[in-house]
Amino acid sequence: MRYKITLSYDGSGFCGWQSQKSGGSIQDAVEFALEKLTGIKTRVTASGRTDAGVHALAQVAHFDIEKDLTEKTVIGGLNAYLPRSVRVLAAERANDNFDARKSAKRKTYMYLMYRGSELPVLSGRALCIGDNVNVDAMRDAARFLAGTHDFKTFMASGGGAKTSVRTVYDTRFEDDKFFVKFYITANGFLYNMVRIIVAQLLKIGKGGNIDMRELIALCDRNNAKELAPPDGLYLYDVKYE
Amino acid sequence: MRYKITLSYDGSGFCGWQSQKSGGSIQDAVEFALEKLTGIKTRVTASGRTDAGVHALAQVAHFDIEKDLTEKTVIGGLNAYLPRSVRVLAAERANDNFDARKSAKRKTYMYLMYRGSELPVLSGRALCIGDNVNVDAMRDAARFLAGTHDFKTFMASGGGAKTSVRTVYDTRFEDDKFFVKFYITANGFLYNMVRIIVAQLLKIGKGGNIDMRELIALCDRNNAKELAPPDGLYLYDVKYE
Repeated sequence: MRYKITLSYDGSGFCGWQSQKSGGSIQDAVEFALEKLTGIKTRVTASGRTDAGVHALAQVAHFDIEKDLTEKTVIGGLNAYLPRSVRVLAAERANDNFDARKSAKRKTYMYLMYRGSELPVLSGRALCIGDNVNVDAMRDAARFLAGTHDFKTFMASGGGAKTSVRTVYDTRFEDDKFFVKFYITANGFLYNMVRIIVAQLLKIGKGGNIDMRELIALCDRNNAKELAPPDGLYLYDVKYE
Repeated sequence: MRYKITLSYDGSGFCGWQSQKSGGSIQDAVEFALEKLTGIKTRVTASGRTDAGVHALAQVAHFDIEKDLTEKTVIGGLNAYLPRSVRVLAAERANDNFDARKSAKRKTYMYLMYRGSELPVLSGRALCIGDNVNVDAMRDAARFLAGTHDFKTFMASGGGAKTSVRTVYDTRFEDDKFFVKFYITANGFLYNMVRIIVAQLLKIGKGGNIDMRELIALCDRNNAKELAPPDGLYLYDVKYE
């Protein structure tokens, strides 16, 4: 029987989603909790990896287990064995051909920034951008990301993607004077893609003279070497058919 | 020479503002950093204690030191020796009769709550209140707090206050559908006063039949035993003449 779960986590204490030999991954924590709950060692597959320090407001994962578990048992049982920094928000039985990774149609990431001085309660959870960032300039530049492009400029090596072509459906800025939120929705993301894009947008916001269309067209990471820290990055939503 | 500093901290890893023999207080951390910076052991006085786990967006403190330090030196120097969870936001020379505690005229606390399921990135930093809380009822009840009253009902023992009479200038709710923020401004607060009030407001929000005027008039903590967790409590602002 296949189960679909929705998870939220504070990634700041973890080495990322994917299981590592050295431990400390979110996947390890979820698989440990699932074994504690059911007595069966089970593999959990997420919609995608998140890097060390990256958070999730709604990560989706699936697993197969030959047990008839209620929604309440899965949520309550896993949460009882998970650290507080990982919570299961929802659980349901899924069709056998549902695959958290392969069936994902669009994903949204949010990058959380805030103005003013660095605030400890936001440390590791958002990026402090000070007071001299031009969000309108960032918003204007981000618009050129929409569409189907080869995003090689914004791809770190080591991701193992077959193609660097992706379709960005939408970018959006929300600016409430204190928090600045950047949302980007695509059919998929390359390795470090959002953090490389955010680093370029921040350079633009600080007065950098960067032509986003040209930057995309160059298809060369050497023109966009900076990487925004994971602190502000949240996997925000994963949509399926 | 007297200096006034404004601090922000994430209280979740600390035993509170006040220095403890066992260490682990914010005061200890600030005094340690000040000694590292100046070579002189110096006492730092805050506008008031915050309890273990309580945060500050803007705590004010003062200290005396026979050194001519620029604003930049105080801010940068202290932050270099402070843990990331404590930041100095501002510093200035103050008049000798300025006292961070005694000169404070009004303080504002904010209590941060959020709807829905518990989110790990907010763990220790806000209180999850689920989806069935009537904020309008809480707002209506909170209005009765305004004014000069004996707030003994909302005073935990051990605070050592000479009188339990305080003047609440204002209470305010902000509700953006996800976050619910409760602000309360007074000339001073009794021990645990905000957390005891929030616990009662939450009971009201969940349908409890509580008459706030009567509760205040009873002047008896036995009618308000609950204590909201420190997680959502922020010292928000301290005003001087």
